[in-house]
Amino acid sequence: MSTHPLDIATALKRLGPERLEGRTSEFYSNVGGPFGGFTAAALLRAVMEDERRQGAPVALTVNYCAAIADGAFEIECRERRTGRSTQHWSLELTQGGKAAATASVVCGARRPVWSHRTATPPVIAPADTIPPYKFPREGGWLDRYEMRFAAGATDFSPRDPQDLREPVSLLWMRDKPDRPLDHIALAALSDAFIIRAFVVRGVFTPVGTVSLTTFFHADEEALRRQGAEPLLCHATAHVFNGGFFDQAAELWGRDGHLLATSTQIVWYKE
Amino acid sequence: MSTHPLDIATALKRLGPERLEGRTSEFYSNVGGPFGGFTAAALLRAVMEDERRQGAPVALTVNYCAAIADGAFEIECRERRTGRSTQHWSLELTQGGKAAATASVVCGARRPVWSHRTATPPVIAPADTIPPYKFPREGGWLDRYEMRFAAGATDFSPRDPQDLREPVSLLWMRDKPDRPLDHIALAALSDAFIIRAFVVRGVFTPVGTVSLTTFFHADEEALRRQGAEPLLCHATAHVFNGGFFDQAAELWGRDGHLLATSTQIVWYKE
Repeated sequence: MSTHPLDIATALKRLGPERLEGRTSEFYSNVGGPFGGFTAAALLRAVMEDERRQGAPVALTVNYCAAIADGAFEIECRERRTGRSTQHWSLELTQGGKAAATASVVCGARRPVWSHRTATPPVIAPADTIPPYKFPREGGWLDRYEMRFAAGATDFSPRDPQDLREPVSLLWMRDKPDRPLDHIALAALSDAFIIRAFVVRGVFTPVGTVSLTTFFHADEEALRRQGAEPLLCHATAHVFNGGFFDQAAELWGRDGHLLATSTQIVWYKE
Repeated sequence: MSTHPLDIATALKRLGPERLEGRTSEFYSNVGGPFGGFTAAALLRAVMEDERRQGAPVALTVNYCAAIADGAFEIECRERRTGRSTQHWSLELTQGGKAAATASVVCGARRPVWSHRTATPPVIAPADTIPPYKFPREGGWLDRYEMRFAAGATDFSPRDPQDLREPVSLLWMRDKPDRPLDHIALAALSDAFIIRAFVVRGVFTPVGTVSLTTFFHADEEALRRQGAEPLLCHATAHVFNGGFFDQAAELWGRDGHLLATSTQIVWYKE
């Protein structure tokens, strides 16, 4: 049994064939509920630990419906259809009988067919030449990731409101303490980017991820090969419009292999 | 009542508060079931026509679980949580009681807050200077879109298997016959790109979209301003690995406004 904070925090107790119970954790606390990556990881764990699962995760979508209160939650994890190539799951995280998150997971078995890599990893200095980022505050999920920024960190120091920066972050990132990579960790990492609005504006504004979709491009063996080495990560945004902005991210592993791509849409207050 | 094929094909009959009935249509038929964009549009229509809906679509995810047989299907459309900023819906399309697609829709109200456009539209020749693409076959959904390619069309003519092309398509695209844009049409358009594997390899291989996520970046009024003008569209892929590849697409409207971004992951046989 792993004693890594991610495994302790996302541990689930089975209540029935399609119902599980989990708890929020101080390890991944954030302002107004847990870090969204924690929620994604807990939902994916429900599928990973289901004895009916066939194949490895290919796609994960999490819709964040409402703030999750500290304490217990239930996850309903329903297998909806299993075919030769894919298996489809629908999930719902509830508190007090009300949906706080909905999710879907698709699993699939990769086969030794024609493969081709068209995207190339961004150029970045080696991880050990970049000092780890120090967040302006500590505690909760901010202590769970080691980030080494080559571009697009933000220090929240006051600046001219007209001084809008590029929406791009380029960094090395991994779990802290480090942990061998698997799909559960990768799901959480795909939501661990600094909020794009903070990067662009350098100011804090209330935000909340509305919907996160992560595509996994590697099977369990390929993730094991990555071990606990940092991932090369790139995130950008296309548009901030009327209270919603997007983020598109890439998470690269060893040997220039793209392990996951992820998009999310985020609500912002002002 | 619109007589456009999209509106005829996606018409739904209400069976109950959260149940509707639809039918596949020859207007949007494809190999082995309807065009995936039709399925996305029908599912989104179920939310658009629900009297409980608040706001316009922000995010849509459709998971394609199994081939949809020609004929009737049912859609279960469940409101899961409505908050001040967002409204969350879970949907399932069934035939004979078995899930053929699952989906989630998030609606939200855009507000006149800080907005900022960081992505810029790709450069392309005017639509009227590019001849419409002629598909190698006719019928069904292929007759429903006018595409004018500046790059990344494929003619499926035999070529060297080592001759792999860029995974990028750049084109003008709109409904055929033309139709004023709305979120339902935009959902379908977001799945109307030529399959990336065909563009890269120039050969046909059995494929099927597994999961599609579209983020909408414009409200209903902004889409009305677009009218029936063609959208500037860009699609690319990052990786084809072991039977699954991704696609990332942008759909741009007038005045350089990004109307939607979309990602999908697609199963391919060989």
